[in-house]
Amino acid sequence: MKNESAVSIYRINFSYFYCMNPEFPTRDELLEVHRSIRPYIHRTPVLSSTLLNQLTGARVYFKCENFQKMGAFKMRGAQNAILQLSEAQRKAGVVTHSSGNFGQAVALAARNLGVNAYIVMPSNAPNVKKSAVRQYGGKITECEPTLAAREATSAEIQRATGATFLHPSNQNEVILGNATAAMELLEDHPNLDYIFTPVGGGGLIAGTALAAHYFGKGCKAIGGEPLEADDAWRSLQSGKIESNETANTIADGLRTELGDVNFPIIKSLVPEIIRVSETEIIEALKLIWERMKIIIEPSCAVPFAALLSEKTRFKNKKVGILISGGNVDLGNLPFAG
Amino acid sequence: MKNESAVSIYRINFSYFYCMNPEFPTRDELLEVHRSIRPYIHRTPVLSSTLLNQLTGARVYFKCENFQKMGAFKMRGAQNAILQLSEAQRKAGVVTHSSGNFGQAVALAARNLGVNAYIVMPSNAPNVKKSAVRQYGGKITECEPTLAAREATSAEIQRATGATFLHPSNQNEVILGNATAAMELLEDHPNLDYIFTPVGGGGLIAGTALAAHYFGKGCKAIGGEPLEADDAWRSLQSGKIESNETANTIADGLRTELGDVNFPIIKSLVPEIIRVSETEIIEALKLIWERMKIIIEPSCAVPFAALLSEKTRFKNKKVGILISGGNVDLGNLPFAG
Repeated sequence: MKNESAVSIYRINFSYFYCMNPEFPTRDELLEVHRSIRPYIHRTPVLSSTLLNQLTGARVYFKCENFQKMGAFKMRGAQNAILQLSEAQRKAGVVTHSSGNFGQAVALAARNLGVNAYIVMPSNAPNVKKSAVRQYGGKITECEPTLAAREATSAEIQRATGATFLHPSNQNEVILGNATAAMELLEDHPNLDYIFTPVGGGGLIAGTALAAHYFGKGCKAIGGEPLEADDAWRSLQSGKIESNETANTIADGLRTELGDVNFPIIKSLVPEIIRVSETEIIEALKLIWERMKIIIEPSCAVPFAALLSEKTRFKNKKVGILISGGNVDLGNLPFAG
Repeated sequence: MKNESAVSIYRINFSYFYCMNPEFPTRDELLEVHRSIRPYIHRTPVLSSTLLNQLTGARVYFKCENFQKMGAFKMRGAQNAILQLSEAQRKAGVVTHSSGNFGQAVALAARNLGVNAYIVMPSNAPNVKKSAVRQYGGKITECEPTLAAREATSAEIQRATGATFLHPSNQNEVILGNATAAMELLEDHPNLDYIFTPVGGGGLIAGTALAAHYFGKGCKAIGGEPLEADDAWRSLQSGKIESNETANTIADGLRTELGDVNFPIIKSLVPEIIRVSETEIIEALKLIWERMKIIIEPSCAVPFAALLSEKTRFKNKKVGILISGGNVDLGNLPFAG
């Protein structure tokens, strides 16, 4: 009896320490991941702007993953996922399907370790994305532009080559890699009250929430999401993973949906997701381009738009914002005169 | 006789030390200017890109004055010019005519010291430029869009207010302020072989050439100039100030011509100006936007285009490039799909 009770108390403390869930990655795991990917990534700068501080009323610190290798934070998760593979797995290669940054990240991260990367891309993916994957040494297989075709083609390559499938947002290795961006931001600015991230597949906000929990001083991760693709906001409301009803947003990196690995973390650790309109996204994008003179993807304007739309609530707070990437098609910008 | 000879030898040494011309600003003057403007400017970062290094074959260091206050190096010269004024002059204010960055720089630099700034702007100047000047507290007087009207309007304001006229490129205080960008670049990277700058009115390259002479180790300033506005290239050939025959270039900051204060410095200290076509400028601009994820003005792509066009000659050299500014009109970009 006495023994059981002691165990039970121990368990309560234990689970409290582990963010209510002992299955979540630990603080030590995050530190170890950061140590192991460090040689392959840039320590990206943190920028701020007097004018944007005035405009928001907050003190805003932009963690510039648009300056990351291959131009996006995805490099962190991809590199960690490949580092975690066994020798045999590395020999067989990795496979993913992507029309965006994760394909490029996997190609470059694999090349860093001499691993073959098979990237399945929809036939209608922009040539600039295909040539970037090729430039990083990725082997492209084209398929019909449907999720079913992408998954079938990936599965075929897995069978034929024994390659390991990497998911862009819904596996722990990727979430842990992503977490390192917020870890660095908190090393530079330990007293942040909040870190805002975009929410697409959920891999960045989950990693950021873990980093904020373990390395912040009461710091919380807040999500920014387009109203046009608000699956994560509705998932937090209902308590289960919801699908997008529409995905007609300029923030093309955020059209995806949460997964069963990242959602429990988000549900436990993210107090709030703020939704913004397309107009708000484009205004925030323009402000960052014009005032900070940096090129960011529309998706990364979403968390800044979220802060702007709720600025009275965040007045005088110290807010980090994860600028997730800078790969844009300069021939197709939303700023037409 | 003996005396005269001694004096003559002394003079030769003296003039050699002073870049063949004892009237040029001295090393100590440059240091003093940097000390005095430092509280009013950003120490801008120096960025580099593995890919752009591979592409040029050189080691390239971009001094990012697009991140400078008000978005351009012009802040440095304007601030120094106003700091050098007497109390009486400061009370009467300053005046300049500008359709570009110098008007904004004067407005902000004057506000920093509680000085009135009268900015003459052509009536067809973009609203975004006018509102920036206004935002920095400048008092705008509009005039016809001709040089004659701009000069006449400025002269009228000088007469009415006693304000001191500031020239954007052809006065020593401005040239010295501009020089501090290259001084900082050489502090960060002392072994540069060359520093490339754009050449418009000549104030940036003259200051850079002085900084390279006094603070480099054999470092030389090289100019990049549009073929469409190649007055400086032709001036170096003929040995006297030449006018532009055309100025039909996207590099709108470089349509101006050299002046009698900066040209002697350029003639003494700048070994070469490299001319580039409009296509080369747009390609270089796109490369920097896409690969470095920073927003720069078309004018600042010119020196990088110059390096690219002569890359075999600069192979393995350490090359600084002054990114002069980042104020662009996002509604009017040269990247249309």
